[in-house]
Formats: sequence, structure tokens, C-alpha cells
Amino acid sequence: MDHKIKNIISIHDFSTKEINYILSVSQEVYKNPDKYTDLLKGKIIATLFFEPSTRTKMSFETATKKLGGNTIGFEDIQTTAIKKGETFSDTIKIVSGYSDLIIMRTKIEGAARFASEITDKPIINAGDGTNQHPTQTMLDLFTIKQKIGKLDDISIGFFGDLKYGRTVHSLVEAISLYNPKIIKFISSPEFTIGKEYLKILDSKKIKYEILDTPIGNLKDLDILYVTRTQLERIAEPIDIEKLKKKYTITKELLDNENNPNLFVMHPLPRVYEIDKNVDDSKYNLYFKQAENGVYVREAILLILLGLI
Amino acid sequence: MDHKIKNIISIHDFSTKEINYILSVSQEVYKNPDKYTDLLKGKIIATLFFEPSTRTKMSFETATKKLGGNTIGFEDIQTTAIKKGETFSDTIKIVSGYSDLIIMRTKIEGAARFASEITDKPIINAGDGTNQHPTQTMLDLFTIKQKIGKLDDISIGFFGDLKYGRTVHSLVEAISLYNPKIIKFISSPEFTIGKEYLKILDSKKIKYEILDTPIGNLKDLDILYVTRTQLERIAEPIDIEKLKKKYTITKELLDNENNPNLFVMHPLPRVYEIDKNVDDSKYNLYFKQAENGVYVREAILLILLGLI
Amino acid sequence: MDHKIKNIISIHDFSTKEINYILSVSQEVYKNPDKYTDLLKGKIIATLFFEPSTRTKMSFETATKKLGGNTIGFEDIQTTAIKKGETFSDTIKIVSGYSDLIIMRTKIEGAARFASEITDKPIINAGDGTNQHPTQTMLDLFTIKQKIGKLDDISIGFFGDLKYGRTVHSLVEAISLYNPKIIKFISSPEFTIGKEYLKILDSKKIKYEILDTPIGNLKDLDILYVTRTQLERIAEPIDIEKLKKKYTITKELLDNENNPNLFVMHPLPRVYEIDKNVDDSKYNLYFKQAENGVYVREAILLILLGLI
Repeated sequence: MDHKIKNIISIHDFSTKEINYILSVSQEVYKNPDKYTDLLKGKIIATLFFEPSTRTKMSFETATKKLGGNTIGFEDIQTTAIKKGETFSDTIKIVSGYSDLIIMRTKIEGAARFASEITDKPIINAGDGTNQHPTQTMLDLFTIKQKIGKLDDISIGFFGDLKYGRTVHSLVEAISLYNPKIIKFISSPEFTIGKEYLKILDSKKIKYEILDTPIGNLKDLDILYVTRTQLERIAEPIDIEKLKKKYTITKELLDNENNPNLFVMHPLPRVYEIDKNVDDSKYNLYFKQAENGVYVREAILLILLGLI
Repeated sequence: MDHKIKNIISIHDFSTKEINYILSVSQEVYKNPDKYTDLLKGKIIATLFFEPSTRTKMSFETATKKLGGNTIGFEDIQTTAIKKGETFSDTIKIVSGYSDLIIMRTKIEGAARFASEITDKPIINAGDGTNQHPTQTMLDLFTIKQKIGKLDDISIGFFGDLKYGRTVHSLVEAISLYNPKIIKFISSPEFTIGKEYLKILDSKKIKYEILDTPIGNLKDLDILYVTRTQLERIAEPIDIEKLKKKYTITKELLDNENNPNLFVMHPLPRVYEIDKNVDDSKYNLYFKQAENGVYVREAILLILLGLI
Repeated sequence: MDHKIKNIISIHDFSTKEINYILSVSQEVYKNPDKYTDLLKGKIIATLFFEPSTRTKMSFETATKKLGGNTIGFEDIQTTAIKKGETFSDTIKIVSGYSDLIIMRTKIEGAARFASEITDKPIINAGDGTNQHPTQTMLDLFTIKQKIGKLDDISIGFFGDLKYGRTVHSLVEAISLYNPKIIKFISSPEFTIGKEYLKILDSKKIKYEILDTPIGNLKDLDILYVTRTQLERIAEPIDIEKLKKKYTITKELLDNENNPNLFVMHPLPRVYEIDKNVDDSKYNLYFKQAENGVYVREAILLILLGLI
């Protein structure tokens, strides 16, 4: 493929063909990790975490270092020159002079896009507020494809905070490119999926269901994608413990669904919404999912730097 | 030797034979540092410092990088996902997916042991509260052997905080495996060694003395092992300055003992208990001891990863 | 050249010949960056930032890693053993046991000099309070020479905070070694250059002018070196906005000077004193200047470690 991928800012920027290309390179790296250990030799990758996210930073740093590259950066805005009044754009321009590629995370929607417009170095958006975290979506897709064998025609449930969860929104949009068999949105009414996403599905004639309990609704699913329910967002007084109990996935609940081919994913960190007793079960795909992030990010680094 | 050392959690886990093996590999690395510079190429070592300890972290990172490996990690729990409610065990499982070996330091006794039970990756305990810091004990043993030529049959004094000092406790137990000639415990009465350690020595018929002054008691020692006296632990009002004066090792004090073969060790950081004028004397072994930590940790990394 | 450069503590320590040597090695690294990618293999460079300075730290880390070396260190004194009462000199001695070279930044004037006296490892001063930051001066000289083609006989203006700015003071002294055609000091009266620097110029018979506006005074300059005006230092109540307006370099102001050969430098971070509209103009040399810091620091590492 004649790839022209310059930055990774938003999942919206990519055609299905481009996503498939990224996933196929990821699979290549996954299968032959030792083949790529020197490709980033001498390269400097900047990890600018204006907002802390240790796990995401470690995943990108692991990817860089497995490819033989080096990182510079920060993970706390407190110690940067921005305290002395330096603007965001000056920081990007200066770091562009030091590095071959910039990975950045901010609280500000659109910051990564803006950065990509003022530097010639490739930019990877590692999360800009509640907006986009595209490499998370790509590793989600990679994990589904790796486990289920395909992205088309799958049955997927989303569970937890479907209203505020960035990863859910991005994955719904991405999976809708692959014509899923059915999407089930399972949440308490306070956390139901936004109408704008249903409109997208309607426009593509993708079948979906809005449900308020997992019980009895997981029998025909390939994937159950769980996210944190942000209980603190609920305005009215409710019985939190009751809600927790109803919206926690346990091994017993999964066993009762009698679906041995179901896999549970989660972008992590988890709080309570998947019980620990799922960890040692056959359903658990979430730790593998986190691990896959390294391979997908390796692939992305190789593609953006034109090394593959 | 057919070594099966999987983790470094507690000095108690090791037989004399295993400790000797670790020390002999350390000596090997010490003698031929350039022989091992590529063995960790492509390996990712996680340094999870839930409690800050910059010097220990730097020592492990130096060891890793001298072997050609790379590190990821954090040294401040504030910036980790644990703030978002992620459990310790999830952190360990996720980082296991990123890395080949995990070095961890926590305030919680037993945390490293627990970690070793939930991951297949090797774990090195870099300190769990007041409990264990086994690589410190190993570098202490290595330094004694390097300088004195043997671990058996030595005369060693412990000085300073013998009541609370973790390093003293571990080294007393470890050296007791080697049948010392005599152990002298020298401290103010408030900081005397715990009875449980004396019982161990009694059971092994190892000779010891409880003393309250270094003066006149260092003449026949090979090693004087000094630790910080934690004055803030003393409940009753006392004359601190008088105590400081009595329990500070100076060059004059050492010269007066007329023991040119005495070496002073200290796990560092030091506060006041060794006077600066000892630094440039022949007695000073403590900076060399700190440096030795790198070689011992290199050896441990090679052993745990099965690379030697 | 038979170079004997052991440390980089103060720009005052260097002869013109030595500075020229450092600049020529920098030029060598600049021209052939790929030639030096393995020279620091296996070397450990300590970056001890007792005072945070993310950008300077990133520049040194980039230099180290481009040469194939590794870094250890910290950028926040809060997490170091100094909190436990360890002295600065113990920290230096311990880190000397881990590393091949120490780069340090502190708030304390003279700290780097002191460090160089207690360790055999090379020391680079990355800023000691308001005193010295010699690698900044060297990259400034390198940038001027690269752009103008020479250091002798140039016309240079300094603009902004000439009273408190460390970089201005060091560069004035350094450039005075090269017999400049003229130096113009342009600032509001509150921020005028100190008399001690004028005395140096007088003693060398170097022509200078004290001016309070850039307007009309940039026509014959090769370089305009701008620094932050630290408005908060002004004691008396003044019209800040009026001052800002008068002491901001804009593209219009530069165009009106009708000097197409003028280049604007700035040690960065910038606050308001160079308008954004200069960024995309031909006058902008400040981002290139920041980038040059990496090459100059690579050269310095190679020289101090005796690798070139």
C-alpha cells in the first residue's frame, strides 16, 4: 500500500483501508517482534504528557524502546517552561527541533490537531480531553480482529458508561465502518449512549438495541466491551450500592449466559465494573488488550516514520 | 550451577549456595563490565516506585542500561492510574504485558511477594516498607567479600539505629549464614538490636556483644556497618546534641582505635553519624559500597532473565 | 588540538581557542550527525536537575541519546534522598559511582564548581542560579557563527532584560573575545545593562551604544538577541501595557528597519517580547538556535568523555 499517513490525530481521519493497513502492520509486528528491534535506532520520540497518564505513556515508551528508539519528554506540566509563560505552540516548535516524532496528551480538545499544523514532525494524539484517543481505538480493533478473526459482521455489546466514555464513542464509530451484525448498548438509564451515535448507526442501517441489564443479553455476543461507570456524574440521589451490584460483570453472570465464545474487553483502568473473579476465566481479554497496545503503537511509529 | 532463581523478594528465600552464586556472578560482572553490554538489548525493565527512592531507582536503571536494556516506570504514585481507582494487582498485570521484569518499591510489607504471585514475570523487591530490601543486603555482602576476601569468620560491628534499621536486620541474618567470628551491636540503649535477632545468633552459637560506645570496641573489627540513628523516634526528652556527639564516627575516633584494617560501611543516605572527615580516609568503604550496587543489580537482572 | 577540557562550569574558564575548538566539533556533529550515533554506547550520563528545567533537560537527553548513550537522573529535588537529609556532596559522590558524566542544574551559585572539586567525573553546569549556563552561551555563539559565517567583527544588539538576564551577560562577555564591530544595548531604562559589562567593553575598546528603543537602531545589525523582560521586577507603578507595546519586536517593526540581513535570536522561553508574526518571517533564528543546542551539547559530551 502506498501509505501517506502523516499523523494520528482522530479516528475520523482514516479510511477503512487505512485502518486495515495499520492493523495489518500491527499483526506483522505482533508475529515477528524481533524483526524490528533496530529500526528506530538513533531516533528520538518525544512524549509530551501535559496531562498525566502513566499507563499510556509507558505503553508508548515500551513501543519506542522495543524498536530501538529513545524517548524524551515530561508527564507533568508543572515542571515545564509553560510555567514561565511559554506558549503551547513554542513548546511544540522547540521539541520539534529535538525529536523525530511527538506523542502528546492534553486536556484540551483539538490541541493535537493544532500541533500538527505548526510542525512538520509527525504527531500522535494520545488523548485530548474527552475528544479522541485514536491509538486506543486501533488497539481495540486489533484485539477484536485477533480474537474473533474478523471485524465485519460481529456482535458486540457496550456496557457501563456509554454517555461520557470516549473509548466507547470512538469504537462505536470505528466498528460501524465494518458493518456489525448487531450492537447492544447496555447501561443504567443515566449512562445511555448519545442519540448522535444512534443516528450514525441508523444512517448505515446497522442494527442496535438499547438495554438496561446484561442479564440474558450476552448470549449471542462475540465481545462485551466494558467501561467505568462514573457514578459521581449522577445528579439525583440514588442507591449507589444497588447500582453497582446491577452493573458489575461477574463470572457467575457470564457463566449463566451460557456463551463460551464471549470475550470481555475493557480499556482499563477498571474500578468495580468487572469483578476480579473474571480475571482467571476464559472470558478475560482485557489484559491481552492492554498488551496489544504495544504492538499497535510500534506499528504506528514505524508507519509514521516511513520505516515500513 | 543449575539456578532456578525466579524472583528477589526476601533475603530469607535464598540458601547460602544461592547467595554465593549471585555474588559470584556479581564478581564476574564487576571484573568484565564490557562483556555484558548487549545482553539486555530489546528488553524492557519496569521500575515501579510506588514510594519514591531516587537513588535506588538510579542504581537499578544504571544496571539495566549498562546491560543494554531499557526502562519504563514511574516514581510517584500521584501520577498513576491508581489515582483513578485502579488496583495494585491490575497495575502489575498490565505492566507485565509491557515488560520483561518488574522492579518495585512500596510502603506496604508483602506487596512484592503478592506481585510475584499474580505475574509470571520476575519481580525484584526494591524495598517494601520496613520489611525487606534484599538487593541492598546482597550488595553489602558483595562489598564485604570484595574487601575482606571472605564472608566466613569475619568480625563485624553494627552501629547506629539497630532497632528500626531494615538493612541492619537483613544483614545480621545474612551474615549469620556465614558463621562470623563475632558481631558487635553498638548503639545508644534506645536503639539496641531486637531480641529476635539475638535468638537467631544464639541458635547458631554465634558470638555477639551488646555495647553502648564505639570507643575501644573497634580494635578487632573487619567491618563497622553504620546506619542513620533516627533521633525523632526517641520518646523521652534527651540531650540530642550530646547523643549526636557520642554516636558520630569521626576519623579521630577511628585513628584512636589503632585498627588500620577496619572499613566503614553505610547503606546511605547518611545524616550526621559518619563525620565528613572519614570520607578521605582509608576507612571509607561506603561510596564504593554504593557503586557496587550497580554490579550486583546487573548480576541479578542477568540471572532472573536467564541470560547467564 | 590537544584538548584538556575537563568540565564545563563557566564560560570564563575557556580561552578563545578552546571555545573555537568546541564550536568546530559542534559543526562537525552538525554536518555528520549519523557518524556519532554509537560513540556513547554503554555510557551513563546523569542529569541531576535540583531545579526543574524541562527544556534544558530534554536538550541534554536528546544529545546523549543521539550519541547512543543513556541517562539517569531526576528533575525534582522533592523525590531525592536530600529530603532524608543527605548532603549535596554525598549525592554527587554516589552518582559519580553510577555514571560517566554529570550534568547538573541548581539554584545555588557555585554548586557546579563545588561538585567538580569532589568528583573525578566530568561536570556540566546546566545553570546555577543567576550565575552561569555556559552551554547556552556556546550554542548562541555556534548559531551566530553558523548564520553570519564569523564571530569577529559582527554587529549585535541585545534587547529586553539586560539587567537580570544571565544569558545576555554571558554572551556579552563571550562575544567580546571576538572583537565585535558594535554592540547595542536596547532596553527600557529599568532594565539597562550593568556598568561592570561596559567596563569590560571599554577595557577592550569595543564600541557600544545604550539605547531605549529598537526603532531605527536595527538597520546595521547582524543579530538582535532578545530576552524576556521581567516586568515583575519593576518597583514603581508604571503603565505595563505601554511598556509591553514599546518593547515587543514585531514583523512590522523589523520590516521598517529595512535590514534583510538581520536575524533575531532568543534563548527561550519567550513571553511577549517577540510577536508571533515574526515566527514565519526570514528574521526568525530562535527555533533554529534551540535546535542547535542539541549539536553543541553532543560535541561537549564527546569532548569531555575524550571520545573525539
